[in-house]
Amino acid sequence: MQYPFANRIGHAPASFLEELFRVSADPSIISFAGGLPSTALIDTRGIADATREVMETEAGTALQYTTTDGYRPLREYIAERYRHRLGIPATADEIQIVNGSQQCLDLFAKIFLDPGDHVAMERPGYLGAIEAFSLYEPVIDTVPLEEDGPDLDAFSRLVNHTSVKFFYGIPNSQNPSGRTYSQEKRRAIAEYLTGTGTVFYEDDAFGELFFDNKPRFPVKRYLPDQSVISGSFSKTVAPGMRIGWLFAPREILRSFNIAKQASDLHSNFLCQKILHRYLTTHDLDAHLRKVTSTYSRRCRLMCDLFDDLLPTLSHTTPEGGMFLLATLPAGLTSHAVFTEGIRQKVAVLPGMPFYVDGGGKDTIRLNFSSASDEQITEGMHRLARVITSLSPS
Amino acid sequence: MQYPFANRIGHAPASFLEELFRVSADPSIISFAGGLPSTALIDTRGIADATREVMETEAGTALQYTTTDGYRPLREYIAERYRHRLGIPATADEIQIVNGSQQCLDLFAKIFLDPGDHVAMERPGYLGAIEAFSLYEPVIDTVPLEEDGPDLDAFSRLVNHTSVKFFYGIPNSQNPSGRTYSQEKRRAIAEYLTGTGTVFYEDDAFGELFFDNKPRFPVKRYLPDQSVISGSFSKTVAPGMRIGWLFAPREILRSFNIAKQASDLHSNFLCQKILHRYLTTHDLDAHLRKVTSTYSRRCRLMCDLFDDLLPTLSHTTPEGGMFLLATLPAGLTSHAVFTEGIRQKVAVLPGMPFYVDGGGKDTIRLNFSSASDEQITEGMHRLARVITSLSPS
Repeated sequence: MQYPFANRIGHAPASFLEELFRVSADPSIISFAGGLPSTALIDTRGIADATREVMETEAGTALQYTTTDGYRPLREYIAERYRHRLGIPATADEIQIVNGSQQCLDLFAKIFLDPGDHVAMERPGYLGAIEAFSLYEPVIDTVPLEEDGPDLDAFSRLVNHTSVKFFYGIPNSQNPSGRTYSQEKRRAIAEYLTGTGTVFYEDDAFGELFFDNKPRFPVKRYLPDQSVISGSFSKTVAPGMRIGWLFAPREILRSFNIAKQASDLHSNFLCQKILHRYLTTHDLDAHLRKVTSTYSRRCRLMCDLFDDLLPTLSHTTPEGGMFLLATLPAGLTSHAVFTEGIRQKVAVLPGMPFYVDGGGKDTIRLNFSSASDEQITEGMHRLARVITSLSPS
Repeated sequence: MQYPFANRIGHAPASFLEELFRVSADPSIISFAGGLPSTALIDTRGIADATREVMETEAGTALQYTTTDGYRPLREYIAERYRHRLGIPATADEIQIVNGSQQCLDLFAKIFLDPGDHVAMERPGYLGAIEAFSLYEPVIDTVPLEEDGPDLDAFSRLVNHTSVKFFYGIPNSQNPSGRTYSQEKRRAIAEYLTGTGTVFYEDDAFGELFFDNKPRFPVKRYLPDQSVISGSFSKTVAPGMRIGWLFAPREILRSFNIAKQASDLHSNFLCQKILHRYLTTHDLDAHLRKVTSTYSRRCRLMCDLFDDLLPTLSHTTPEGGMFLLATLPAGLTSHAVFTEGIRQKVAVLPGMPFYVDGGGKDTIRLNFSSASDEQITEGMHRLARVITSLSPS
């Protein structure tokens, strides 16, 4: 039969991430196209210990239903970390646990966006956010992302002339560009937004992955009631547990909580318990130093190989995170590089899905967290051959 | 500031389930108001064994990202169980894993309902479905639920005269009523729907909890391409893992999968692995016989106490599941019974939230799965005192 789908399904961009997982599954391909943290760096022993302790001492509780807001001791841990790491007076009442921070994108859009409403984001912007927002049929405005954050002229013009429900950004090691906002731009953004009806949504998936292990102050520090932060344990501890959170003013969380309950009642309690046990019996900061020292080395290796082997490409130079963005020389398209790359067994991600307006055809995103040093070296040599074979001689 | 919430937030019914969890937390109250399966019957030892094996043999994989559709061996297990239990030719490609079957309600509504579209359900109907659907701003039509299923005259009138996107029902041990559709009505429903554009959505949370341990054939058997079934491990294994699924034609799953990916990328992989390991190394049917023999005994006990102590109330007599519905004598409201009940330390659930049209003021839902036999006996005596104290003498 012809199924009577809703109009919004026509608005959904093709499911690109899924395609990537398939490509990444071919073991002969060196993939820089995915977005996985390093599997080898997951503290499986520590998590196994925490899991055993939960199962030995409170299995019945952990396997039962719980409340929508999430496990309170875990929410207290998260709030306390905001207080001591960033000096922000967070409380557990301002934290809602979700199924990985992707769910924040869906639920936040759900409570804020009517069809035709304006929402804004960086250009290029995170693909997962574009996918989540699109299903609520908004107009998506973009602000060019420069080396040190959004273009402030474009930003202030937009928020002054358009009724934007919220601006979504990734100030720390953005996906896909790897760029980080300067503190000056964060402060300026807060100033521009003050007095407008626009909420700042900071997606902070990578704020604990700076190579220098130093925190950057979030926009929320300058705009406490008019901003939210989504956080995630996917990149710091493990993605497979699907535990993230939203840190938001209580009035926003009240609506967010209603949407969360209607969506799936609550996030899986077993993993919330395991994670809390792990975080309170292990040294997260020591673990993060291990992770960032590896990511930092791999990022530098990739950047150096770019400069040596592919001097005609320009690339960003991340201070943290898992991604960098490269711009191809004139005449080359990322589509051609992707296709020829698969043939020559190296996968990069074409930048187009990160541009809601159809741009980005000359950009590619590369992930440096999941491949080993050897794979990065070999993969970059393959990429250099791909580019050479495609370039006009 | 005043947050610019979307209109749909004004459509969200007050969050009642959350309130219940709070009431249920007072240990001096005997609660029949919640919806928990018995904690004591969760096979914590078996799940702990499965968990240990997963952590010992494949922790790295289980803690990493995975695909949106879910762990394929788990989907194959689910499909195989449909084949051997119900004789339905299900395949893994027709199964999508979700965060508990509540998420099916959200995602299914998301892909089918535009504002103003019609969706239909039983009256009374499941509160979680009303909450999930309401956020997509549909018109919710209802069909009276009789002892043996929906009123067929009302059902056929509705689907013939209104363009209903889908009919949502719980044919097996419905929540809140405990009623089960007869096979005749299932067949008749399939006949009435054939040739219409209306999909039948069968929520099968309780189909494995019949007291006689015999399966009932789903509407899908008579209407394969025009129906879906949502299933859950929350009542059969453990709710805290939040693993359910949708069994649907592939074309529906394609859209459903896009919505799932935008919502939260995928369900937690660790619990999918644990659950699959548990199901393939333990005897689920033996476990279910243990669960249903306890629930059956508690249900009979509660019904007998109703008949002995509260002959002025009428109640349903479930063949399975976890709930029954009682109708108060004339002049008594469930609100009064709830309020006086809390004072006298027994909690029942007022029926109103299950009626989208404001009805049900004289009904109360009681859960018989989570209280012990002693608590049921004591709680029903307390309830009898509540009713007596409220009744005109």
